[in-house]
Amino acid sequence: MVLAGGVGGARFLRGLRAALDPATDRITAVVNTGDDLTIHGLRVCPDLDSVMYTLGGGIDEERGWGRAGETWTTQTELAGYGAEPDWFSLGDRDLATHLVRTRMLDAGFSLSDVTAALCARWQPGVELLPMTDQRVETHVLVDLDAGSRAIHFQEWWVRYRAQLPARAFVQVGVESSVPAPGVVQALAEADAILLAPSNPVVSIGTILGVPGLRDAVATAPAPIVGLSPIVGGAPVRGMADRCLPVIGVPTTAEGVGRHYAARTHGGLLDGWLVHTGDRADVPGVAVEAVPLLMTDDDRTRAMAQAALELARRCRDA
Amino acid sequence: MVLAGGVGGARFLRGLRAALDPATDRITAVVNTGDDLTIHGLRVCPDLDSVMYTLGGGIDEERGWGRAGETWTTQTELAGYGAEPDWFSLGDRDLATHLVRTRMLDAGFSLSDVTAALCARWQPGVELLPMTDQRVETHVLVDLDAGSRAIHFQEWWVRYRAQLPARAFVQVGVESSVPAPGVVQALAEADAILLAPSNPVVSIGTILGVPGLRDAVATAPAPIVGLSPIVGGAPVRGMADRCLPVIGVPTTAEGVGRHYAARTHGGLLDGWLVHTGDRADVPGVAVEAVPLLMTDDDRTRAMAQAALELARRCRDA
Repeated sequence: MVLAGGVGGARFLRGLRAALDPATDRITAVVNTGDDLTIHGLRVCPDLDSVMYTLGGGIDEERGWGRAGETWTTQTELAGYGAEPDWFSLGDRDLATHLVRTRMLDAGFSLSDVTAALCARWQPGVELLPMTDQRVETHVLVDLDAGSRAIHFQEWWVRYRAQLPARAFVQVGVESSVPAPGVVQALAEADAILLAPSNPVVSIGTILGVPGLRDAVATAPAPIVGLSPIVGGAPVRGMADRCLPVIGVPTTAEGVGRHYAARTHGGLLDGWLVHTGDRADVPGVAVEAVPLLMTDDDRTRAMAQAALELARRCRDA
Repeated sequence: MVLAGGVGGARFLRGLRAALDPATDRITAVVNTGDDLTIHGLRVCPDLDSVMYTLGGGIDEERGWGRAGETWTTQTELAGYGAEPDWFSLGDRDLATHLVRTRMLDAGFSLSDVTAALCARWQPGVELLPMTDQRVETHVLVDLDAGSRAIHFQEWWVRYRAQLPARAFVQVGVESSVPAPGVVQALAEADAILLAPSNPVVSIGTILGVPGLRDAVATAPAPIVGLSPIVGGAPVRGMADRCLPVIGVPTTAEGVGRHYAARTHGGLLDGWLVHTGDRADVPGVAVEAVPLLMTDDDRTRAMAQAALELARRCRDA
């Protein structure tokens, strides 16, 4: 059982899938949906899609998100109409996913139903569950146009490249959200709960913000092992260094480990993997250093194996 | 003022625009919306789009519908998901139009508003008005799967190539529809009302099925001149020969002329243009034979000029 965001979570899951035996081992991934947005009338789930495309062999490996061999014809035409917003590009291949999803949601299906239907095509080999079927959206409080404004996370991330100083992240709707069907049971039955090396604030943090999910993690019998997304004092990918300071967490492997281990997340951490050469002192948590760069499939699989072994040792301890 | 369907109406309007002086002459086209459908959650208006793309220079001239240089990436991906229906293809360029339209309709704008917004990009040089802002859909009563069924016009036309015998056409919603804003006024103020050489049953017939519109045509002071879509006993384009027998009208220039002139349409015809060599005896209507094949711009412009001149003579008579 893995809690995961987008690109980093997707790659880690591919490594984990390679490290396990598909005949006997089952992987459930609970994926962040706080980045989801409605654009040009279509419901887009960036993290779920990154994970689905990556595990289903459809991802653009270079970019890390979106479809391989993507084209942008419709997007160019939308620009021809002056359609707003113009800072989020939808690829022609990717569009079909959003059309199917939006139509199903409009027909009354839940995001869980939709995700299962889309995965029937992609066969990710991992059970993908949205963290919740309710609409939860991360908004970012920024100073803009001489005033304080809350903008959608994607606007902050994509349009402003996370360069606009954030005062706070607000997960709109999270407090009244409940875990998607299957999430609580999967947590209760898991042999190990892994926190993928995803953004600790707007990916893992958002997932753990769902009240019933946070509780299910805190009471799960399985050991909880996290993988640091911070290597050598900087995020391996993405802009976690723009997010961590906002919640007062240092951009270090130790800072994130301590954050996960702290009471705010129910003291949830049993084991913490940091990158070779990094140090982290996290009271009450077994810390190990292994290579954490997902530069190829072998390295990523080894990293997943290390996480599983640390979880085993935590369970046996 | 022109009543028009899709491809034939679009080409005729281009000829009419060429025949008139844009500085002094205003053209309003009232376009059939009975072919409109919702597909993959998107509202598609085939006739309005054919006219808009043709007049705006975006049409695929070869095919007569859709965008020039079109690609079908999203459609291929929709097929990858097994998304139904699979018999109506949306091009990648075309898709942007439907996304903008659907989003505006969902936001509460009328189809008239949407059409004006789309035309702000395409600058057709003609005021395009949908026949109505209400949802009117032509359904076709057919024998299928050992029973009588009503299917959407597009399913009959595109999926079954109009080869499935039609028992009747039903314009669902038409009786409670009202003309779109501007239509009644344009009819009342027109110097001439032209019936484009479009399908007399499912294009012009549907437009004239809107009660307030039919009444406004019948009481308009301007002469009404039609152009026969039937040349040498067969439709120039499309499958009007599959539609006319259903309403008991012969597939001849005379048959269609008499149909338009009959009491069912309020005896609306003053002049009727048939193709050189065709004959039509329509009591009380001035019939003229001129070349009616829209094979190039010059011929189409000449045909529009002939219609305008016939209208002038009817007015002066």
